[in-house]
Amino acid sequence: MSSEKLLIDEVCKALEDVRKTSPLIHCMTNTVVTGFTANCLLALGAAPAMIYDEEECGIFAGVASALLVNVGTITKDQAVAMRAAVTSANQAKRPWVLDPVAVGALPLRTNLAKELKLKTPSMIRGNASEIIALAGGAATGRGVDSTAGVDEAVEAARALSKETGAVVLVTGAIDKVVYGDDSVISIANGSPLMTRVTGVGCSQGAVAGAFLAVCEDRKVAAVATALVMAIAGDIAAEQTSSPGSYQIALLDALDKVSSNDIRVRAKVEICS
Amino acid sequence: MSSEKLLIDEVCKALEDVRKTSPLIHCMTNTVVTGFTANCLLALGAAPAMIYDEEECGIFAGVASALLVNVGTITKDQAVAMRAAVTSANQAKRPWVLDPVAVGALPLRTNLAKELKLKTPSMIRGNASEIIALAGGAATGRGVDSTAGVDEAVEAARALSKETGAVVLVTGAIDKVVYGDDSVISIANGSPLMTRVTGVGCSQGAVAGAFLAVCEDRKVAAVATALVMAIAGDIAAEQTSSPGSYQIALLDALDKVSSNDIRVRAKVEICS
Amino acid sequence: MSSEKLLIDEVCKALEDVRKTSPLIHCMTNTVVTGFTANCLLALGAAPAMIYDEEECGIFAGVASALLVNVGTITKDQAVAMRAAVTSANQAKRPWVLDPVAVGALPLRTNLAKELKLKTPSMIRGNASEIIALAGGAATGRGVDSTAGVDEAVEAARALSKETGAVVLVTGAIDKVVYGDDSVISIANGSPLMTRVTGVGCSQGAVAGAFLAVCEDRKVAAVATALVMAIAGDIAAEQTSSPGSYQIALLDALDKVSSNDIRVRAKVEICS
Repeated sequence: MSSEKLLIDEVCKALEDVRKTSPLIHCMTNTVVTGFTANCLLALGAAPAMIYDEEECGIFAGVASALLVNVGTITKDQAVAMRAAVTSANQAKRPWVLDPVAVGALPLRTNLAKELKLKTPSMIRGNASEIIALAGGAATGRGVDSTAGVDEAVEAARALSKETGAVVLVTGAIDKVVYGDDSVISIANGSPLMTRVTGVGCSQGAVAGAFLAVCEDRKVAAVATALVMAIAGDIAAEQTSSPGSYQIALLDALDKVSSNDIRVRAKVEICS
Repeated sequence: MSSEKLLIDEVCKALEDVRKTSPLIHCMTNTVVTGFTANCLLALGAAPAMIYDEEECGIFAGVASALLVNVGTITKDQAVAMRAAVTSANQAKRPWVLDPVAVGALPLRTNLAKELKLKTPSMIRGNASEIIALAGGAATGRGVDSTAGVDEAVEAARALSKETGAVVLVTGAIDKVVYGDDSVISIANGSPLMTRVTGVGCSQGAVAGAFLAVCEDRKVAAVATALVMAIAGDIAAEQTSSPGSYQIALLDALDKVSSNDIRVRAKVEICS
Repeated sequence: MSSEKLLIDEVCKALEDVRKTSPLIHCMTNTVVTGFTANCLLALGAAPAMIYDEEECGIFAGVASALLVNVGTITKDQAVAMRAAVTSANQAKRPWVLDPVAVGALPLRTNLAKELKLKTPSMIRGNASEIIALAGGAATGRGVDSTAGVDEAVEAARALSKETGAVVLVTGAIDKVVYGDDSVISIANGSPLMTRVTGVGCSQGAVAGAFLAVCEDRKVAAVATALVMAIAGDIAAEQTSSPGSYQIALLDALDKVSSNDIRVRAKVEICS
């Protein structure tokens, strides 16, 4: 049995475990995508909770199964609460995900993300521009869109993984999971329509929390995050080519996607 | 004619009145569900307005037909504005609804909800865990999800109603309306799919405002809130079993649900 | 060839340019409509970015192709950030749109909008009540709904355009574009269903940013904003009469609407 097949088996097991245990994910995310993020988690079989007060965040990050910190519409007050939530998640030994949305030129989010990356995130998810900037490279990107290709970000992702201990998920037309010194896995599923609906990438950060909550191996969690979302995206793209309908079809597909769909459709390659 | 039939007639009349007068509901609600809440009110035939500045809240709560205070993503600034809005609604003799989302272990929301419950809310809507915690019982619940059954909350709801003067709507698989010393009404409509879409419960708080705006009897308003939402949920569940599509079907059903649908489908029982 | 036909040609060219260049619109908008606004821009072919920290706003407004300031859920902190964003957009010579949601009786938004209207917005979009109030007339309106007709607002819009230099788009059953001393253009497309979905008007402010980014003539941008949205509304109304489904059909129509649709369907009249 190939290593890819073994990996896909672990992804199927992780999806089953999410649906069985319905992990509660504390999402500190941006105001554009909160509703869609909650609906993605519910469709997948997990449970969302969005809490933003500093003291409540400190308490809740230890109660939830995982924490997402997404800096997309960061304000100074939220930065304070995010620090409290990360500290609390770490104390409670809960996994947490850092999503460095539009990090690069914008100072508040860039400084916060560079501070938080050193506080043992389990996973960092971003597009190529964001990963390059967070690793210390030149700021590129245009708002939430990447101006760099995923392949250009692999070296930065490797450096970032080594620096932080996190598994790094670089999302794009082909997603790459990069971990430690030498592990690179590519996931080639997914549809361009996923970029025509707001919040698909951001919701992936929350889905990452759900998989981290059930996976011992954070590399498996990252592959599951990329693969389940991208296959749901493939299934949805078979229903419609219009962006409004696609948003709904994607939620329906997250609910329906099965182990069999994953085994039949997965385009996963262990590159190194 | 049975008491249940008379009650259902009053619900039908209330729905007609909402559609005729389109009451304007000032919603101070959480960031996850604002859009869906506004769309639920619009689909039902009411009008939403979300206003969060302390001074504007003070003015607007007296202009609107009813106020919703939902503490789901409470921050300290919002708590200040909510107090101003409640005071102003009371001065203007407008009904207001308290939705104690995830009250229990989290301190800011718990303290605020316990303070506000004493300021004459017309209705309190929550799941069993939230109602038990707000009544002063042990904190249970897991984020926004209840870990207690609705029946376990009836005694707490009765105490809460007597303490506050509010009618209490406990939502769950079977909803219960509890009012004063001895009134308990159960509503057994609704679909499990309603828990797979974010904001259905929270939107019910806004719908409660719309019914309070047109009903003299707050018990009727609570039954109307539970029953109209649950029957819309039944109708939507006949269209689809997928959570993305269900969200849309539920809005469509809130627009379409008729007096006849209510009379034919209602599973209402006056328990005491 | 009539003047109307020439104008419609310019609108078709503008739509093509939006899709070709995908302008990035910095939206500072209200919490009810952020997700839908982003999805409208994406469906049209533009790109959204929502950024709210004062310092980041100052930087980003110069990076984006246009800025939207919508005061719908204004708070004091956001007012500070909006001022910074407007100053920065002006310094970078970027167009910006003012949407004075519910301006009139509510003090924070009314004072802010009256301050910002003097800072050279390129376009002001509002319903009749809002435009009358912003021009200095008596406050009317009921929350986000107008209690005045569009025709009643034409004189106020003319005064507002002369005072501010902005083109004024008054939206309602028939939209009117008012510019300078004597230009009034009416757009009679659109469906009443557009008022049954939250955020259609607010999203129009963001769409206005996209058209301003590609049009040299702000009058053309305003007509394009009204016309493209209203024709998408017409197309969507042919798919469904239910508000939930309509929201999705509208996004699908924004993606599909073609130059040919615009030429065949446009009900544009240059009144003066």
